[in-house]
Amino acid sequence: MVLYIIGLGLADEKDITLRGLEAIRSSSRVYLEAYTSILMLSNTSALEKLWGKPVIMAHRETVELEADDIIRDCKDGNVSFCVVGDPLSATTHTDLILRAKASGATVRVVHNASIMTAIASSGLQPYNFGQTVSVPFAQVDSWLPRIAENLQHGMHTLVLGDIKVREQSEEDMARGIQRYQPPRYMLIPQLIEKLLSASEAHSQGLAKSSLPVAPILSAQNTLAVALCRMGAESEGIYAGTLAELHALAAATPEEARAEEEADDADELASEAELDKRRAQRAEERAHTAFGAPLHSLVIVGSRIHDMEARYAGQYKVTGSRWDDVAREVYGCRD
Amino acid sequence: MVLYIIGLGLADEKDITLRGLEAIRSSSRVYLEAYTSILMLSNTSALEKLWGKPVIMAHRETVELEADDIIRDCKDGNVSFCVVGDPLSATTHTDLILRAKASGATVRVVHNASIMTAIASSGLQPYNFGQTVSVPFAQVDSWLPRIAENLQHGMHTLVLGDIKVREQSEEDMARGIQRYQPPRYMLIPQLIEKLLSASEAHSQGLAKSSLPVAPILSAQNTLAVALCRMGAESEGIYAGTLAELHALAAATPEEARAEEEADDADELASEAELDKRRAQRAEERAHTAFGAPLHSLVIVGSRIHDMEARYAGQYKVTGSRWDDVAREVYGCRD
Repeated sequence: MVLYIIGLGLADEKDITLRGLEAIRSSSRVYLEAYTSILMLSNTSALEKLWGKPVIMAHRETVELEADDIIRDCKDGNVSFCVVGDPLSATTHTDLILRAKASGATVRVVHNASIMTAIASSGLQPYNFGQTVSVPFAQVDSWLPRIAENLQHGMHTLVLGDIKVREQSEEDMARGIQRYQPPRYMLIPQLIEKLLSASEAHSQGLAKSSLPVAPILSAQNTLAVALCRMGAESEGIYAGTLAELHALAAATPEEARAEEEADDADELASEAELDKRRAQRAEERAHTAFGAPLHSLVIVGSRIHDMEARYAGQYKVTGSRWDDVAREVYGCRD
Repeated sequence: MVLYIIGLGLADEKDITLRGLEAIRSSSRVYLEAYTSILMLSNTSALEKLWGKPVIMAHRETVELEADDIIRDCKDGNVSFCVVGDPLSATTHTDLILRAKASGATVRVVHNASIMTAIASSGLQPYNFGQTVSVPFAQVDSWLPRIAENLQHGMHTLVLGDIKVREQSEEDMARGIQRYQPPRYMLIPQLIEKLLSASEAHSQGLAKSSLPVAPILSAQNTLAVALCRMGAESEGIYAGTLAELHALAAATPEEARAEEEADDADELASEAELDKRRAQRAEERAHTAFGAPLHSLVIVGSRIHDMEARYAGQYKVTGSRWDDVAREVYGCRD
């Protein structure tokens, strides 16, 4: 029988294709990859209603076991394995597909839009993008050279923020409690902080061993486009320099002072507790400025065309130097 | 009212999303961008039946005029502008969208899968692709440096073949006859010939002025994946070296000899006529080997992972040195 690997598209249950829906309705079992879907579909009842089928959640940490189930199911009828976005763009599901084929099943992929398609809504040409990078919460910056490589040849870079779902706290793990932390999504301000600090550290590292080197990214002179909830009704696109986009979610001086005073006054709070509060405030401000996740960021490459700059400029944030930087740093004409 | 810019997806009328279909059904006028759609949908009746609407063809050479119509239509009701694939991936339709917004219309984009999504079906990771290039029929090789830039940093390259539709012959144009040539699509063998000859010319050009330089691409040692009719039932994926993929559509020595003899024997045929026959035979062989258009090609970058090589290796053509080249040239492990 057939194993369908089906993309559900960008935002909600209406983004499935007719081909995908037909495949699901022909299937005796329907799996939903839980990892990416947690955000888009807060519950599966809308899907189950539309599909006319119960949905089986497939969790990434148990995918090995579930692959066996899925492949066994294929012997008795069609099976659909559904993934938010395009089904192969984030993970190629190579293992599942190869094993299903080896067991004699026919595998069919039903593609759909993903963030890699939605980048075009920024007005930046998809042809001009280089490799895509993911920025994790962890202190790792192996993604920085990839951005530098793209920039060297003037290409744009799609930067994806980390997603953490079904994480366990260290305490729970130590006590053997099976309980998950709320999901975490990297939002635009944190993404920009990671980009700028890695870039700064990189240039200092190089400066030690040889001549001073300009950072790969510049808060004032690197243009970027924030892509939020692409494809949803509430889609938000924001263009500006890295510093401008970051400032959108910054505390005003008054807020910062008031918060510092409140923290100082609370003598019972530990430093860890205060850090947690600060992180929470930052997250609330990021939500206010950019809305709910998912957030991604495009770093603009130097080969940006005048028309790309003009189109993306529609989305520039209030007071942005977008046009000046496009002209003076990127060499665009008005 | 709303101007919807709607992607129809990869293959046929079933690839539209529910969101796209709903938008079309809410529209008082529905345009179909004719340029890319000629191939996928040989006639529009399947669309009209599904959509319950007449379809107005929008031709690229008159898009300026049609943009005025489309924008005027938006004043009275919703309008849908439909494009095969993702609606913004090949052309950003910047002009239409900016003018519609300026006239006060709301513009909504309904994304869909495109060849840039379907590349993942090759098993090569979409994250590892650099910029995309288009290879035209014309003798232009400005795309070659882009491939070289991608290869320098180990990235894969999606190479799109040219499409020529609604072309007029020089004779017809001279006589003022409004008649179009049959559409032309660049097929895999011609695409590979263009890649290798541009690469060879480039290395010879460099060799003149300085030291000899290796060509950017190697017939024997560059791996590639041919992507044909992606998303359709008849989808075909073929992996091998550039030489192997090219050889799939080559004449056997016996065929070549027989054809040469036939050409020599036909003393009435002009050299131009013989060239035309040869081109036609080459095209027929390309069709036999790879099937109907659209054809695209991925040039594999040096950072290919073992798993990517293994997965794409499923599609290697008979007798291919794929595994050897992956190991010896690209450094993959088995």
